[in-house]
Amino acid sequence: MTRKEFRELATPEAAREAITSLPLEAGVEYVSLSAARGRVLADRLDADIDVPGFDRASLDGYALSARDTFGADEANPARLEVVGVVHAGEEPTVDLEEGEAVEISTGAVMPPGADAMVPVERTDETDGEVAIRTSVAPGDNVMFAGADVAAGERALGPGTQITPRDIGLLSALGVEEVPVRARPTVGIVSTGDELVRPGNEVESERGEIYDVNSYTIAAGVEDAGGEAILYPHAGDDQDEMERILREAAEACDLVLSSGSTSASAVDVIYRVIEEQGELLLHGVAIKPGKPMLIGRLEASAYVGLPGYPVSAMMVFRTFVAPAIREAAGLPEPKQATVDGRLAREARFDEGRRRLLPVGLLESADDAPGGDPLVYPVDKGSGATTSLAHADGVVEVPAETDYLEAGEAVSARLFSADVRPPTLLGVGEDDPTLNRLLDRLERPRYLSVGSRPALRRLRDGVPDIAVVAGPIARETDGIELGSWEREWGLLVGDAADDVSGLADLVDGDYRFINRTTDSGLRTSLGVAVANLADDRGLDRDDIVESIDGFGVGLRAHESPARNVLAGEADVALGLAETASQLDLEFVSLGTQPVRVLTNPDRTQKAAVCELETILEDLE
Amino acid sequence: MTRKEFRELATPEAAREAITSLPLEAGVEYVSLSAARGRVLADRLDADIDVPGFDRASLDGYALSARDTFGADEANPARLEVVGVVHAGEEPTVDLEEGEAVEISTGAVMPPGADAMVPVERTDETDGEVAIRTSVAPGDNVMFAGADVAAGERALGPGTQITPRDIGLLSALGVEEVPVRARPTVGIVSTGDELVRPGNEVESERGEIYDVNSYTIAAGVEDAGGEAILYPHAGDDQDEMERILREAAEACDLVLSSGSTSASAVDVIYRVIEEQGELLLHGVAIKPGKPMLIGRLEASAYVGLPGYPVSAMMVFRTFVAPAIREAAGLPEPKQATVDGRLAREARFDEGRRRLLPVGLLESADDAPGGDPLVYPVDKGSGATTSLAHADGVVEVPAETDYLEAGEAVSARLFSADVRPPTLLGVGEDDPTLNRLLDRLERPRYLSVGSRPALRRLRDGVPDIAVVAGPIARETDGIELGSWEREWGLLVGDAADDVSGLADLVDGDYRFINRTTDSGLRTSLGVAVANLADDRGLDRDDIVESIDGFGVGLRAHESPARNVLAGEADVALGLAETASQLDLEFVSLGTQPVRVLTNPDRTQKAAVCELETILEDLE
Repeated sequence: MTRKEFRELATPEAAREAITSLPLEAGVEYVSLSAARGRVLADRLDADIDVPGFDRASLDGYALSARDTFGADEANPARLEVVGVVHAGEEPTVDLEEGEAVEISTGAVMPPGADAMVPVERTDETDGEVAIRTSVAPGDNVMFAGADVAAGERALGPGTQITPRDIGLLSALGVEEVPVRARPTVGIVSTGDELVRPGNEVESERGEIYDVNSYTIAAGVEDAGGEAILYPHAGDDQDEMERILREAAEACDLVLSSGSTSASAVDVIYRVIEEQGELLLHGVAIKPGKPMLIGRLEASAYVGLPGYPVSAMMVFRTFVAPAIREAAGLPEPKQATVDGRLAREARFDEGRRRLLPVGLLESADDAPGGDPLVYPVDKGSGATTSLAHADGVVEVPAETDYLEAGEAVSARLFSADVRPPTLLGVGEDDPTLNRLLDRLERPRYLSVGSRPALRRLRDGVPDIAVVAGPIARETDGIELGSWEREWGLLVGDAADDVSGLADLVDGDYRFINRTTDSGLRTSLGVAVANLADDRGLDRDDIVESIDGFGVGLRAHESPARNVLAGEADVALGLAETASQLDLEFVSLGTQPVRVLTNPDRTQKAAVCELETILEDLE
Repeated sequence: MTRKEFRELATPEAAREAITSLPLEAGVEYVSLSAARGRVLADRLDADIDVPGFDRASLDGYALSARDTFGADEANPARLEVVGVVHAGEEPTVDLEEGEAVEISTGAVMPPGADAMVPVERTDETDGEVAIRTSVAPGDNVMFAGADVAAGERALGPGTQITPRDIGLLSALGVEEVPVRARPTVGIVSTGDELVRPGNEVESERGEIYDVNSYTIAAGVEDAGGEAILYPHAGDDQDEMERILREAAEACDLVLSSGSTSASAVDVIYRVIEEQGELLLHGVAIKPGKPMLIGRLEASAYVGLPGYPVSAMMVFRTFVAPAIREAAGLPEPKQATVDGRLAREARFDEGRRRLLPVGLLESADDAPGGDPLVYPVDKGSGATTSLAHADGVVEVPAETDYLEAGEAVSARLFSADVRPPTLLGVGEDDPTLNRLLDRLERPRYLSVGSRPALRRLRDGVPDIAVVAGPIARETDGIELGSWEREWGLLVGDAADDVSGLADLVDGDYRFINRTTDSGLRTSLGVAVANLADDRGLDRDDIVESIDGFGVGLRAHESPARNVLAGEADVALGLAETASQLDLEFVSLGTQPVRVLTNPDRTQKAAVCELETILEDLE
């Protein structure tokens, strides 16, 4: 098999054009009025009835002929004979003659011979006669047939995205079925032997991970007005993958695949496209997004997204979502752009346009008019979750290789609804902290550990840093509050004779530590140094006799969970974690967890709120 | 029965408080990940696994011990023995010893003994030996377990409205069921004998109209994050109404009724509330919205909305929607406010705060920086459809009784998504025009007839006026284009011997005319005058011998539809309408339909576009 060659990366504009050239429209379908909200009208809708369909009394009172009220006023009321009554929903049974009136309810049909009505407040009825204490002109207090909407009138134009207000208009016209643009169906095919659908167990030792792209892209498709169809997971079996691709192409307007990082998946996709379709483009000069495929699969459009979730989502948003919206008849969402200044320098080593996911942070309230801070959000190329901590995207031109801190940048929010966090915190993982944060509106917290938190606080980006254990370095941070937590050893069944640090040194246990970024590790270091002093030994001697001391895990529950899984005997952790996961706990002491803020942020609303919450804690 | 008396209208603030005091929360429910988009997280979600769950190769290449690459470079590669291979989704089967390497795929598990990897581009493999042409540090090209998300980390806070990006995070954690705030259920009860649900036939002669409120309020409820339940239509039968109210109160968090303008409906509602609930408030000092009820019905909250659709929707939006959103955990929508100037003066005769539905119109493009025009949208108190032609609301304080044209006002858009029309047109109804407008993006057209259109064009609000027939008055309007239409008599079966206007004068037919606002009526007037001249008669003599000449209908199809319905024998109308509705047509001539614009609007984009479309027509 010879592959069609694409030696040069396509420009982003060419990629957009290639996708636009593929027909994704799904035709017209009819939906009931109760399902019409948010859908897009496929055709113009003209009124085919008058609304109201009859001359309608606007108030409760008396229908009459205006000329019979000529000259009437409070002093000289006109006296008319009441010859009947019409309620709403009734057909009038009398024709009015001169000198006659009919009692009428709001919304009722004006009887023949009446051309106006007088509200009940301006009348007195006694013994079949009504005194009319005002004069009226023809048409007064009557809504004529068709006054609201008239038959033949253009009611709603094609392309209208139906609001509740439009549903009011459609109801008034008696329309119960509405022709709308059908949602383009988008088949999502995920490949890769290592992927497991959420809800099932992953076997980490085999390198299995959860399939992030399928549900994420499906949600993106629905956001863009498409209908997502998740195909069963194809693994890396070529025949199965081919079968699923063909099935999806048959059923859908667009097929998206992702995670096709393995050579065999790419081979299958190439083969199916070459046999029954056309490859339009392979590779786009944008980062992330380079390994993108655009083509046709039988009658369906096809886009191959990069495998890494962040890349897949960025490419989807940039190139695919606009095409789905267009096919669904939805307008481009209103641009929500925020001008800010870059929180820290950023370097770009490649000559490709870059889409940089960023978080936003409002300036302190005591610096009015200050632009928000814009900080790049990046956990490395394999990260799946960075976008959940981002608010938007800064587009960096291909020729820019460096942006300095403080530089003015413009961030396009992920949607007009995005509300940047009220507070950005960084630092130690802590269960008490997790609960405190629940009491704030829209906080964002990045668990980077205590040491990096102090550095970041000094660099001026986060509002607060949360640090645990002894602080080695000087800090300008102002303490908003603190609490104590008990820490020690979390002990599995195989090590139930461990009763302190000394046992770990003397016994033969597999220990699992935290990283040096963590405040727990710092406190453990102090305990180790004390034990070394007690024994008159060097600290390193102690450390070397603990199997696993040198390797640490990032998160406060991870070591304990390794013990639970039988991969270690003893873990560094918190009393609260032990009790939560039902592990034995050997206390090694308590340590403070402190919440620090920079002097220029003490007046920021969310910081003040957090301070109050911390005061409650004490 | 004595009714609880509310002698004073409550303030809008008191009404808001009364609704807020009623509990609408619907608790927590679990939804699958594929149904989680847009829902609101009920609880904090902490990670209970590490992501990735293992140390993961970031690229294709070789896993090795960093110390084995010490000093290696292009000139002096390190040579390692290749002792195995690990693909993504496989468990490593070898432990690395010194001097060994393992071929590894992107995403695969780092084998024991390896602490770094080298991408394949920096290596050469021959005969089971790999030359490593670079040196690496421990951790290079490896994503450590938990580097993305670590067990115990706070993943998403309570109250998070779930975006596709959050779904990425939830997928990565393997979460398949998500605890979300249940949508408050809102029962919608409509009363009134005259109301008919869309999809059924209305009998206009009985004063029946379509039920506008039920579907419109239901759509508003769904917009606000609630779940709407439409109850069967209760009519005015008191027992049935009571039964439905109680059934709704049992099943729903909130019951909304509307259309209860009849005294009997109010009686039932009062009785049920007094017996098994509490009435908190009756009547609010706002317009529209005065006749509002707030209370409890058994365990459910209850709000009685005004009967008129525009009032019902305004009250719903102002008082009820925020409470539903709050209960659903949704944030108040971002305020989208537009500052503009009032297009024409507005007078307010009551001392109540007023919510004024308005349309918006961008200034001409040749008046840069000009504020948009804000014009009140009002078709009278019984109108059901005005809001479909409005973009937002101007709130007028109770003490303001007059706003002058040009005054600065601030309009709150119905939603942040509202896009005001690109073009505002007024004038004659015309089928050709309807089709032309389809080719513009978001035009708005108000069928006011030819004469009022000229007046409005002179007042400077609309961009274009469409006038048909002879124009009596001088106009400053600039003609963008025109077309001809054939007009005449549309004749029913009972009048198949009518072959001209003379037959109408001489015979005994029920004629149905258009209003004097219409250009068709003007042309008919000219024809009548000509006939009078021919016969040497007075125009009035001719007019009086046509039964029905004096009464006209607003819309171009309405007269024809009356003929179809057997209510008239002959109608004034267009050849196109006759052919569309399959009626006999007697031509009386052709008349021009002209599209006029004001001199200051000729450069506006949509006006230019329309001009081009009109040129195509010729």
